[in-house]
Amino acid sequence: MRFTLGQLAEVAEAAVSGDPDRTIEGVGTLAAADTRQITFLANPQLRKYLGQTQAAAVIMTPADAEGFSGNALLSDQPHIAFARIAALYARTTPHTPGVHPQAVVHESTQVPASACIAAHAVVGPEVVLGEGVFIGPGCVVGAGSQIGDGSRLLANVTVLHDVEIGRRVLIQPGAVLGGDGFGFARDGEAWVRVPQVGRVVIGDDVEIGACTTVDRGAIEDTVIEAGAKLDNLIMIAHNVRIGANTAIAGCVGIAGSTTIGRNCLIAGGVGIVGHIEIPAGTTITAGSIVLKGIKAAGVYSSGTPLEETASWHRNYARAKQLDEMSRRLKALEKELAELKRGNH
Amino acid sequence: MRFTLGQLAEVAEAAVSGDPDRTIEGVGTLAAADTRQITFLANPQLRKYLGQTQAAAVIMTPADAEGFSGNALLSDQPHIAFARIAALYARTTPHTPGVHPQAVVHESTQVPASACIAAHAVVGPEVVLGEGVFIGPGCVVGAGSQIGDGSRLLANVTVLHDVEIGRRVLIQPGAVLGGDGFGFARDGEAWVRVPQVGRVVIGDDVEIGACTTVDRGAIEDTVIEAGAKLDNLIMIAHNVRIGANTAIAGCVGIAGSTTIGRNCLIAGGVGIVGHIEIPAGTTITAGSIVLKGIKAAGVYSSGTPLEETASWHRNYARAKQLDEMSRRLKALEKELAELKRGNH
Amino acid sequence: MRFTLGQLAEVAEAAVSGDPDRTIEGVGTLAAADTRQITFLANPQLRKYLGQTQAAAVIMTPADAEGFSGNALLSDQPHIAFARIAALYARTTPHTPGVHPQAVVHESTQVPASACIAAHAVVGPEVVLGEGVFIGPGCVVGAGSQIGDGSRLLANVTVLHDVEIGRRVLIQPGAVLGGDGFGFARDGEAWVRVPQVGRVVIGDDVEIGACTTVDRGAIEDTVIEAGAKLDNLIMIAHNVRIGANTAIAGCVGIAGSTTIGRNCLIAGGVGIVGHIEIPAGTTITAGSIVLKGIKAAGVYSSGTPLEETASWHRNYARAKQLDEMSRRLKALEKELAELKRGNH
Repeated sequence: MRFTLGQLAEVAEAAVSGDPDRTIEGVGTLAAADTRQITFLANPQLRKYLGQTQAAAVIMTPADAEGFSGNALLSDQPHIAFARIAALYARTTPHTPGVHPQAVVHESTQVPASACIAAHAVVGPEVVLGEGVFIGPGCVVGAGSQIGDGSRLLANVTVLHDVEIGRRVLIQPGAVLGGDGFGFARDGEAWVRVPQVGRVVIGDDVEIGACTTVDRGAIEDTVIEAGAKLDNLIMIAHNVRIGANTAIAGCVGIAGSTTIGRNCLIAGGVGIVGHIEIPAGTTITAGSIVLKGIKAAGVYSSGTPLEETASWHRNYARAKQLDEMSRRLKALEKELAELKRGNH
Repeated sequence: MRFTLGQLAEVAEAAVSGDPDRTIEGVGTLAAADTRQITFLANPQLRKYLGQTQAAAVIMTPADAEGFSGNALLSDQPHIAFARIAALYARTTPHTPGVHPQAVVHESTQVPASACIAAHAVVGPEVVLGEGVFIGPGCVVGAGSQIGDGSRLLANVTVLHDVEIGRRVLIQPGAVLGGDGFGFARDGEAWVRVPQVGRVVIGDDVEIGACTTVDRGAIEDTVIEAGAKLDNLIMIAHNVRIGANTAIAGCVGIAGSTTIGRNCLIAGGVGIVGHIEIPAGTTITAGSIVLKGIKAAGVYSSGTPLEETASWHRNYARAKQLDEMSRRLKALEKELAELKRGNH
Repeated sequence: MRFTLGQLAEVAEAAVSGDPDRTIEGVGTLAAADTRQITFLANPQLRKYLGQTQAAAVIMTPADAEGFSGNALLSDQPHIAFARIAALYARTTPHTPGVHPQAVVHESTQVPASACIAAHAVVGPEVVLGEGVFIGPGCVVGAGSQIGDGSRLLANVTVLHDVEIGRRVLIQPGAVLGGDGFGFARDGEAWVRVPQVGRVVIGDDVEIGACTTVDRGAIEDTVIEAGAKLDNLIMIAHNVRIGANTAIAGCVGIAGSTTIGRNCLIAGGVGIVGHIEIPAGTTITAGSIVLKGIKAAGVYSSGTPLEETASWHRNYARAKQLDEMSRRLKALEKELAELKRGNH
């Protein structure tokens, strides 16, 4: 694929500085792009590498381009401009409208002419499919589910029954939507399964990562609001609600009935217990465990520092004495105060 | 679906208080049920919401129903009664006995007339299938495995060879049973795979969550005893044994050869190292890391509290000084004692 | 399957001590092997159990065999010798060369006569398949990917487009290679997907566990070097590089652009943030959270000890006072020093 810098400028809504006829054949990083590739500079701290790049052109802000003599695309949002340009060069999932002869679609389900149902996909009864939907190879869609216009299930995705998926949703392979929530009633020592009759509702423009699981609600629904982005290997339990545009990195677990507000950032490996609320705009740093609700938006953390195991063993043992140490410290303070009083 | 309150009472083994002819069309929560739905009250703390519910009827204990003038089903186990009733209204996996024309079953495997092998399932040679078994779309069952009466693999489940699954087992999508355990012998810097020749054995009434993986044993078997319930994204390594009726929440990892007793509760995100024992009846709270065996049943925890990142940084740094702080504290106590002795 | 001890000695490159004609029908553990099975002793600490084993023969070092009167195979590497012998008795994935009639292979992809494409596999356009490759049931391989000689995708594995897999790679069920990295640019409150145009490159002899996900690079590639072994439910984010022969246990998450050196050991449940380096030969113990790069190889840990929840609550609360405790301790030391100076 080849485009001129001028063509790319139009796509990116950017201004050309330099040669608009320069041919660009792909994208690269500032450090490694070759003379046929375009790159971008979004972080001013990397400006020092500008002089060394071999790239055919660099996307950056007018301020960063000051004094740069090479070809550039000037944009106030260089990362977004780059995203639009990279999309031109990216290999996309081949979308051939139609139902593959080795796909199985229930007779009660209508497939729009613009949709693609790939080989070995299985689509159940009374499924509602939007325009341009892509159901990739090996995907399963259960009875009564809905998939909005332009949404894509890449491959081996499982969507069970009565799951409502909005428009332009992207679901990576291995993800599971609508599995039964972990709901049991205890009967003596045994557990009795409580049927999970709620749905999963996924808003527009949501992304769901590989092998991420979103369980259906117990009675009411599990909800992921519009624009939320979920990375891989995340567990969303029944009746969780994730606010709009909240981004959650990999390996996060969120237990049942917890509500996460809008525009939160949950870093990788965080664990959040059930039945609590996290307010809009909260950030939680990597590996933190959240055992209580959070009252005010802010940046939160837990955990102890990594250190060499030999010294960690010594500190680790003391962590069990913290309360005792605190009491001894208080006792010392008191004794010393008394002693000083006695001395005067 | 419509049932009268009297019909529901029979199913739930409960007593009607009020109008047995009242029609019930579904289930709802205490707060959100509408006038056609039945709800339940299992937690006496929620009794204060009883007066506001719009529900057609409420399942509760006779004690909680005291003074309630609406329709009720009286049961000593309201949650279990609710589970039985909800099952009537839940959409179940459509179970059409027979082998779908696009399923592949090896000729050496017998399929009982009551079993359902869905589209794009692959069942290998010499598999033993019980009555009423459901092998959902995209599931794979390997050579020599056994699946007991009434067990259900919902969709895209992988069961490799020589896995023994009991009766009434429910396996959510994306789960993997019988992958090779992580066993290698070191040969210089390289690792040599040690063939894993043990099986996976799953007892009756076990549930396995979405994308949960249970590895086969190295030589002997990995065992999940009857009635154990495993949530999503759990890792059970080779030769682990999980005791009967133990419940394990999402994102838990249990390393090789560890034994968990009966009736344990392992909360979400817990990590447990290999080659240790956890006694029956133990509870481990969310996000805890278990590095040593536990001697006596009890409730156990580890970790540090979530706090604002700014103050966490200060406390976090001190965690590396804990042993030194402890020594300084002890030295101070000694000095002060000497000083006081000197003063007298 | 039956082999004589002499035949096994040849396979294992070991010396027979005892009866070379003894028939061996399988493998077992030192404690549980029966009189038809062979076992091994790799850990000298288990030597005390030698006298009680019922095994037909024991693989061990000549030193450990000193004074043992039973049949033995003598090897300097008993675990590796055992691995070779166990492979003879292990049930292997049935590898019938050819393309199953219910597999779908794009016309532009050549399948070597020695390769096996199982039922319901889907192989896209321009895929390069090596000799003896096994693409198991339900696997998906995307456009332009390469799979080297002897590599095996067991079942329901998803390999998206432009993924390069070396030779003798083993991939367990449910794994996903080449999903989109978690890359977004912020546009107001919304997130704009940045196309991920890098590849995934997997070296020779790598193993990838069940439901492990390896994302494609943003611009450059995500790389797993030769001989690295990844367990189940691991998240490898975009542009991560894992060094040769590094072994990573289950439930580990590694964030974007982090580099792990060769020969590292990362225990289960470890979380590692993005954009850092871990030097070759580093060990990180179970459940540790790594928030900064590591300067020198060594053994590293983080976290606090498991204890009964009642006492943990007291210590846990104090963890938020650590910095304050440290300051109070310092103040006490100063006061006491002054007091002593005043006393003299």
